[in-house]
Amino acid sequence: MDNPIPPARQEYYDRIGRDDLAPLWEVLKTIVPREPKSSARAKLWRWNEVKPLLLEAGRVITAEEAERRVLVLENPAYRGQSRATPTIYAGLQLILPGEVARAHRHVAGAIRFILEGEGAYTAVDGERTAMHPGDFVITPSWTWHDHGHTGTEPVIWLDGLDLPIVNFFECAFLEHHEEEIYPQKKPQDDSLGRYAASMLPLEPESDSPNSPIINYRYDRSREALARIARHAAHDAVHGFRLRYAHPRTGGWPTPTMGGILSLLPKGFAGAPARQTDGQIVVCVEGRGRTEIGGQWFDWGPKDVFIVPNWTRFRHEAAEESVLFTLSDRPAQERLNIWREGRG
Amino acid sequence: MDNPIPPARQEYYDRIGRDDLAPLWEVLKTIVPREPKSSARAKLWRWNEVKPLLLEAGRVITAEEAERRVLVLENPAYRGQSRATPTIYAGLQLILPGEVARAHRHVAGAIRFILEGEGAYTAVDGERTAMHPGDFVITPSWTWHDHGHTGTEPVIWLDGLDLPIVNFFECAFLEHHEEEIYPQKKPQDDSLGRYAASMLPLEPESDSPNSPIINYRYDRSREALARIARHAAHDAVHGFRLRYAHPRTGGWPTPTMGGILSLLPKGFAGAPARQTDGQIVVCVEGRGRTEIGGQWFDWGPKDVFIVPNWTRFRHEAAEESVLFTLSDRPAQERLNIWREGRG
Amino acid sequence: MDNPIPPARQEYYDRIGRDDLAPLWEVLKTIVPREPKSSARAKLWRWNEVKPLLLEAGRVITAEEAERRVLVLENPAYRGQSRATPTIYAGLQLILPGEVARAHRHVAGAIRFILEGEGAYTAVDGERTAMHPGDFVITPSWTWHDHGHTGTEPVIWLDGLDLPIVNFFECAFLEHHEEEIYPQKKPQDDSLGRYAASMLPLEPESDSPNSPIINYRYDRSREALARIARHAAHDAVHGFRLRYAHPRTGGWPTPTMGGILSLLPKGFAGAPARQTDGQIVVCVEGRGRTEIGGQWFDWGPKDVFIVPNWTRFRHEAAEESVLFTLSDRPAQERLNIWREGRG
Amino acid sequence: MDNPIPPARQEYYDRIGRDDLAPLWEVLKTIVPREPKSSARAKLWRWNEVKPLLLEAGRVITAEEAERRVLVLENPAYRGQSRATPTIYAGLQLILPGEVARAHRHVAGAIRFILEGEGAYTAVDGERTAMHPGDFVITPSWTWHDHGHTGTEPVIWLDGLDLPIVNFFECAFLEHHEEEIYPQKKPQDDSLGRYAASMLPLEPESDSPNSPIINYRYDRSREALARIARHAAHDAVHGFRLRYAHPRTGGWPTPTMGGILSLLPKGFAGAPARQTDGQIVVCVEGRGRTEIGGQWFDWGPKDVFIVPNWTRFRHEAAEESVLFTLSDRPAQERLNIWREGRG
Repeated sequence: MDNPIPPARQEYYDRIGRDDLAPLWEVLKTIVPREPKSSARAKLWRWNEVKPLLLEAGRVITAEEAERRVLVLENPAYRGQSRATPTIYAGLQLILPGEVARAHRHVAGAIRFILEGEGAYTAVDGERTAMHPGDFVITPSWTWHDHGHTGTEPVIWLDGLDLPIVNFFECAFLEHHEEEIYPQKKPQDDSLGRYAASMLPLEPESDSPNSPIINYRYDRSREALARIARHAAHDAVHGFRLRYAHPRTGGWPTPTMGGILSLLPKGFAGAPARQTDGQIVVCVEGRGRTEIGGQWFDWGPKDVFIVPNWTRFRHEAAEESVLFTLSDRPAQERLNIWREGRG
Repeated sequence: MDNPIPPARQEYYDRIGRDDLAPLWEVLKTIVPREPKSSARAKLWRWNEVKPLLLEAGRVITAEEAERRVLVLENPAYRGQSRATPTIYAGLQLILPGEVARAHRHVAGAIRFILEGEGAYTAVDGERTAMHPGDFVITPSWTWHDHGHTGTEPVIWLDGLDLPIVNFFECAFLEHHEEEIYPQKKPQDDSLGRYAASMLPLEPESDSPNSPIINYRYDRSREALARIARHAAHDAVHGFRLRYAHPRTGGWPTPTMGGILSLLPKGFAGAPARQTDGQIVVCVEGRGRTEIGGQWFDWGPKDVFIVPNWTRFRHEAAEESVLFTLSDRPAQERLNIWREGRG
Repeated sequence: MDNPIPPARQEYYDRIGRDDLAPLWEVLKTIVPREPKSSARAKLWRWNEVKPLLLEAGRVITAEEAERRVLVLENPAYRGQSRATPTIYAGLQLILPGEVARAHRHVAGAIRFILEGEGAYTAVDGERTAMHPGDFVITPSWTWHDHGHTGTEPVIWLDGLDLPIVNFFECAFLEHHEEEIYPQKKPQDDSLGRYAASMLPLEPESDSPNSPIINYRYDRSREALARIARHAAHDAVHGFRLRYAHPRTGGWPTPTMGGILSLLPKGFAGAPARQTDGQIVVCVEGRGRTEIGGQWFDWGPKDVFIVPNWTRFRHEAAEESVLFTLSDRPAQERLNIWREGRG
Repeated sequence: MDNPIPPARQEYYDRIGRDDLAPLWEVLKTIVPREPKSSARAKLWRWNEVKPLLLEAGRVITAEEAERRVLVLENPAYRGQSRATPTIYAGLQLILPGEVARAHRHVAGAIRFILEGEGAYTAVDGERTAMHPGDFVITPSWTWHDHGHTGTEPVIWLDGLDLPIVNFFECAFLEHHEEEIYPQKKPQDDSLGRYAASMLPLEPESDSPNSPIINYRYDRSREALARIARHAAHDAVHGFRLRYAHPRTGGWPTPTMGGILSLLPKGFAGAPARQTDGQIVVCVEGRGRTEIGGQWFDWGPKDVFIVPNWTRFRHEAAEESVLFTLSDRPAQERLNIWREGRG
């Protein structure tokens, strides 16, 4: 639309504009692009730079003042918007020994991936779970949850929430519990042990699309990954990988966000690919680098990086490495708009 | 966050900001609100004001120049953003006798609701359907489609597309067909007659979440509505209503958007309610008014109005009336975030 | 197992037999065969022979005495067992003007296919439908149903019930309604008109695996069949065909039995095939013949014939013909044991 | 039908009988009963009586001669029919050190419940699993399977197959593998470890209704049972119980048969109940008794007993006891005919 608009046409536009009408033909190419061009930017946060800043937050503000002591990972393209990708909020949360984050619930669902430290727990609808590095913990939409710390060292985890999705659809609700800590209703780590046996109650349960497992422990996930690496062939782009699953449906653990754990063998040089979901990637073990939109990013343990939607990427691993990926692929699949391209 | 930020804290914020980190506690209340407060505004477009402007568009610009001759219904709160609600693009499309809109496909799905005129057709993946006022026509995601007009009078319909959703998730793709008109592969109105018998082929068909019916004709929809009105009780908020359905799944006809047809008996005075989906409502028959967020809007045939998300509304009908409602409720349900409240 | 059993072994068998134990190795080949060998036999009932016998039943016994005046189509291999195939009971039911069959319900589900006469109705859970030749009518498991006849001529239909299945699983229950006629709760033919529009209520409905449509009328089914015959390719074995479907699931109309309507073009000479479901076939229109297990059977309008399970068959049509097939394929598919073979 | 049939009517019956027609009204009450009256009988096999007979089979016949060395548990009501309940075949299988049962597959699915001994394995589609007492092992329909024994003591398990179902529907097929032992394709106990983490591959897998887990080990099942016993309330009829589940669907592990593990606390005196599925029950741990149709049966470890369909039963436990129940409830549920009654 480079040509200037003729005056008669402009007069028409002004006139219809007064009734909140606009000519589609002037914007058609903009709103219906030929392919996605992500508004996000690639970015990597180094653990050894971020961790000191986070610990400093523990001194700058009390847990009580902060409610949640979190540094938001803001995509450089969206400063001030609390988004790591177009659709996911991500942050690094710090909890210190003795602190408690009080019980509440909100429509936004959360996924936590534990980065460092022992002794903290999270509780979901009255079931508490101890969190260990590498654990994948969910606090599904509209479940009561609170955190606490009965140990001796700082604990840090990655938070991913579908806040931008819930806010885009204008569906956000929040409620605080009358008690600081939601009453405990089940033994600690109850779901963990029960679902590991692949057995279910006979009595009708919830048909929630959210997984009843609140903690997928790293020791088990890592073992499952090692197991498939012993006999399956690896994927040219992704290495060996497994996704966290809902034990009653086989689907993703939440309807909007999901997690994948990948094992890249030492020396792995992945083929390039693109996918429409925006990825937040954590290096869990190992060392390597990823090319994102033409730029290489080196990574080591606990570094976090962003692969924007439909941006070409490829992974290389100098050592055997494990990557955790959080994305909105479940939401995109449910809306039937997810797509990937190889090459 | 009324208190000024102490200088030491501000220095810390500036420092972490340089690494694209931000303090959650400063924005927490904003991004996790207690309940949705729609960014959209209520708005009604009167048919007798809009129709002349649309016909004028037929003179201001040729169909060829425009590609699609459409006036976008822009929510007053989002001027320049081509959105009627936070998640749906809506427009009024005009097609004149002899015109053809060339074949293309895009990830965004479309719903058309025919407002006026006979003689136009739309074609989806090689099946053509004649469009009549009141027909509910879908052109699902990534299906080839083109329109044409073999009649003698202007035809106008309401377009609803999930463009804001597809663009928010950064999943938009577009492709033009090499031929202007996609080759016809099935007899006209094929799906219409086939699915009316509630019979299906035995051979495995597509398992698409998009309905194989491309036109839900008004004569049938209206009869079904009249039929339930003869014996069912009406809903206090909505009167009698039916939703368009996917014949193989019973779900909505598309994964992101759906349509509802409601019959309000003469003298109906609905109870107030709120729901998280944003509604685009067309008066198909009758006359009445709707209170939206405290403001009354009178409506008559072919008027279109917006009920923003989670905004209290109630309908009154001076005559027996039929309303058509288009919304993103299917997407919200798939993401498990849809909610309604009565009273 | 042709060899005589040695005495010591026989003594062992006798001894364990006293504790209701038996040696598997003596029966293994019998109970785990290499492929199915149907216990049923092929059979054709000619309409012009059966109809007079049925009308005679109207004189031999009153409707009241008989409760249901039906001649059971007994497979020649199972005389006295009330089965047409291993799993389906079939009968020809006669109802005369003025008669009423009183309301009851049972776990067994029924499918009716109307052969001749106008004026009779069936009612299911308070919805009545007028029955016309060619209509496919269901009275699902545990629904209240009664029949009546307000016309002037004898009406005859084919009944198919899953009684052998329900009895095999020992799940049969029966209840008589306190009133002779179950109270009418909906207008006549309500489901028929409603579902033809492919619209569904918004309020949560039953999630029954049984279709809410009680009558799939022949005029619509026949039109749908004609429609696909205009552009689809026909199947080498079956011609053109469509199955009756559940509008909310896309599945078969009942979990145990289903129906298929096939159109064989004039001169059709089908390829041979086998399938594990036992088929009860009605010639609705036309004239032709079917080879079943090496024997040819000529058929014309209203003749009924049996194709036993896993028995090779092929159809030939002298004129354009319509066949209706009733079978237990839905049950077999649900149990994941259905199979077909071509050639 | 106590009255003698009048001669004219009998003449009619004889005449129609020649065309394989029969009067429904003479059999209606028989084939549509008011409620199920099981054809099966209650029965208990004592481990200390059965085991010696089974070991004797090891001397009476070689594994090679027998193909499978199994004593069939024949319901006293069906002698010679190889059925424990109307729909399930059950047997006790013995395998001695060094023996191999050669690879085959059949449409009938099998469930094994290991009673005694260590050292045997079963292999399903190339994955081997070591079997331990209490393990629940499936060899789904049409999967290649073979057994072997690399240990030093006799191993005995309960076999349950849906043979009567597959044969009733006339869907039985059998194939022997060209090699005695199907080639190993995965590490031993592969599925066990993988699914314990509730993670799934991303690449499309089989959508089989049969569980990919071939061995649900007793140590895990028992722990899950103990876990729910710590906080859930027990059922008045069944105590605490869990069912084996399919990790991708949440359904039963096979479409026709399923298993339940129950924990009865010491002193448990269950309420009476009836259910339409026929139950084959194994005492895994503990000691107690069950009243079945008015008759008490004492049970201890490894005893097996039958509760016929729709026959009133109630359990009492003298010690904390674990019962394993195998039944056709999954098939009945899929056919929508399962029912239970309490009291």
